[in-house]
Amino acid sequence: MQALRFHGQKDIRLEEIDIPTCGKGQVKIKPAYVGICGTGHEFSGVVEEVGEEIDDVKVGDRVVVQPIIYDGTCGACKAGFINCCDKNGFVGLSGWGGGLAEHIVLPRSAVISLPDSISLEVGALVEPLAVAWHAVNMSPYQKGDSVLVLGGGPIGLAVIQSLKVKGCEKIIVSEVAPRRKEFAKQFGAHYVLDPTKDDIVSTVREICDGQGANVAFDAAGVQAGLDQAILAIRARGTLVNIAVWEKAASIQPNSLVFRERRYMGVATYVQGDFQDVMDAIASGKLRPEAMITRKISMNEVEEKGFKTLVHDKDNHVKILVEVCP
Amino acid sequence: MQALRFHGQKDIRLEEIDIPTCGKGQVKIKPAYVGICGTGHEFSGVVEEVGEEIDDVKVGDRVVVQPIIYDGTCGACKAGFINCCDKNGFVGLSGWGGGLAEHIVLPRSAVISLPDSISLEVGALVEPLAVAWHAVNMSPYQKGDSVLVLGGGPIGLAVIQSLKVKGCEKIIVSEVAPRRKEFAKQFGAHYVLDPTKDDIVSTVREICDGQGANVAFDAAGVQAGLDQAILAIRARGTLVNIAVWEKAASIQPNSLVFRERRYMGVATYVQGDFQDVMDAIASGKLRPEAMITRKISMNEVEEKGFKTLVHDKDNHVKILVEVCP
Repeated sequence: MQALRFHGQKDIRLEEIDIPTCGKGQVKIKPAYVGICGTGHEFSGVVEEVGEEIDDVKVGDRVVVQPIIYDGTCGACKAGFINCCDKNGFVGLSGWGGGLAEHIVLPRSAVISLPDSISLEVGALVEPLAVAWHAVNMSPYQKGDSVLVLGGGPIGLAVIQSLKVKGCEKIIVSEVAPRRKEFAKQFGAHYVLDPTKDDIVSTVREICDGQGANVAFDAAGVQAGLDQAILAIRARGTLVNIAVWEKAASIQPNSLVFRERRYMGVATYVQGDFQDVMDAIASGKLRPEAMITRKISMNEVEEKGFKTLVHDKDNHVKILVEVCP
Repeated sequence: MQALRFHGQKDIRLEEIDIPTCGKGQVKIKPAYVGICGTGHEFSGVVEEVGEEIDDVKVGDRVVVQPIIYDGTCGACKAGFINCCDKNGFVGLSGWGGGLAEHIVLPRSAVISLPDSISLEVGALVEPLAVAWHAVNMSPYQKGDSVLVLGGGPIGLAVIQSLKVKGCEKIIVSEVAPRRKEFAKQFGAHYVLDPTKDDIVSTVREICDGQGANVAFDAAGVQAGLDQAILAIRARGTLVNIAVWEKAASIQPNSLVFRERRYMGVATYVQGDFQDVMDAIASGKLRPEAMITRKISMNEVEEKGFKTLVHDKDNHVKILVEVCP
C-alpha cells in the first residue's frame, strides 16, 4: 500500500509498504481525510476489517480516530486521565503508523463511531476541536466569564468555537496575522487585538471591568504572549496552556502570588470529549466546516501541504489530505 | 516613643519618634510581641485608645494585627480577595509603621480580637500560621491526599501544622538544614527528605503510590526545588507557591502539559483565616508554641534577632521581640 513516511526533518516520502494485518482486539481502517499539522493523527475513515473479539464495530462503519494509546493500568488511567498515562503513545507520532496511508490497524479503544449526519471531511476536524473542547472543560471557565485567547491558529480558533458553544460573551483574541484575525472574528471572537500594535495587558483589563480576563488560553506558546497573559488575567484568574513549547519559559512567580493567579497545563482529551464535540456538531452548535481551507491528495502533501503550513500558514487553518475519500 | 526603624539594608536604628495620634475609625495599640522575619508585621498587642466611630473594640482588649491594608472598592476586594487588592498595602512594610514600636495606630480593619485562652506570645504566631492556613485552604488539598512541602522554615512548618489539623496522613518535607529537619518531624511531617542526598522526584513518587504527591507547597522559592516539585506531583496535581521570589523562575510548560499539572500562587490571607487559626489554637488542634525559639528585647533586635536570622537561621523558627509584654 502507499504510505507517506517521515524519514527526518523536511524528508517525507510516499512509499510502498506492506499492508498491516488486523489482530485480535484491533480494527483496520481505510483513512478518508487527514488534517495535517506537522503529523498525521487527525483523521476519519471507514472500517474495512475487525479483529477477533470485536463485536461493537463492523465493516463499513464511518469512524474517527482518537489517537491516544494508553495502557489502562497506571494511576492516571485508573483516575480517567488517559491523556496522562505513564506509558502513553500517540497514533501518527509514536508507532501504529498514521492516517497518511491507505490502511491502518488500531486498537479498538482508538476508534470512535462518527454519526451519520457528520461528513468524513468534518470528521477529520473532531480531533483538533476535542483538544480545545477539553481545554475549556478543564479550565475554570463558567458562563459570564471573559476570556483571552492567545493565537488564532487551528487550536485558538477551536477554543473560540468551544467557548461560543458554552455561551461565552466576551472572547478576546490576540493574534498578529491579518488572515487569522479575520478567521477569529468569523468564528465568533468579540475583540481581536494585535500584540504588535495594542497594549494587550491594559486593553484586556479595560475590556474586562478594569480587572482583566477570568481565564486565558495560550494556544501560541511564545514568551511574550505568556508574559502578557499572566498580567492580563484578574486576581485568581487562570492561564491555561495548550501549546507545546520548544523550550523552557520564564515566569516571575510573584506575578502569580500577588494576585493568586494560576497557570495550568492541559493535554489532548479524555474519554467523552470526542463524543461531546460530535454531539455539538450534529446539533449544529459547532459549525467548524470553514476551518477546512484546502483539500489535497497524497502526492501533494509536501508541496501543497507541509510547505504551505510553513510558508503560508497564516492563510490556512486546516489542510485536509484526501487519502481514500 | 521608641521605635525600631529601617533606614536601609543592614541599617536598623532604635530611635525616639513622636507617638502617633489615633484618628476617626482607627485603633491605637501597644505592641506586645512581634515575630521577626525581616520586617515587623507579625504581632499581638493591647488596645490603648480607640478613635471616633469605633464601638466594637475597647481599651484593654488583647488583639492581633491582620496587616493587610485594602481599599475595599476594587474588583478583587469586592470579590473578597482583600489580599489581591489593587491598592493594597501592608503594615510593617508600606506605611502605618510596624510592630517594633511602643505604639501604633491602625485602621479598625487591621485589628482582630485575641481569645482569652491564647497568650500574647502565641498571638504573634497567628499571622505566619494564617499564611500557611490560607495556602492549604486555597489549594485543592483534601483528606486522603499526599503532600510535599518544600522548605522547613517558619512557613513550611506552619503548612505542616495546618495540614495536620486537616487530617493529612502523608506529609513529605524536603529540607537541607539538620535542625529544620528535626522541627519538621516535631511538627508532624511523616517523611523528611534531604534534596542534597535523596532523589526527591523518585522518592516522593515511590512514597505516593508510584504516582507522586497530590499537592506540593513551595515555601522555599528556589529553582532546584521548583524543578523537583513539578515532577514530584502526580497527573493533575498542583504546586502551590507561597514563597516570594527574588527573580524569575524557569519552567518548561510541557512538564505541566503532559501531566495536566497546575502551578498556583497564593498570598497572605483573607477574612476568616486569622479567626480559623485562633479557633484551632483555642481548641488545641494547633499547638504552635514550639515555634518560638527565642525571646529578645527591642535593643537586642539587631544582634540577637536579624543577625541570628541571617547567620543561624537554621536553629531558629520564630524569634519574638518583647516590645511591651
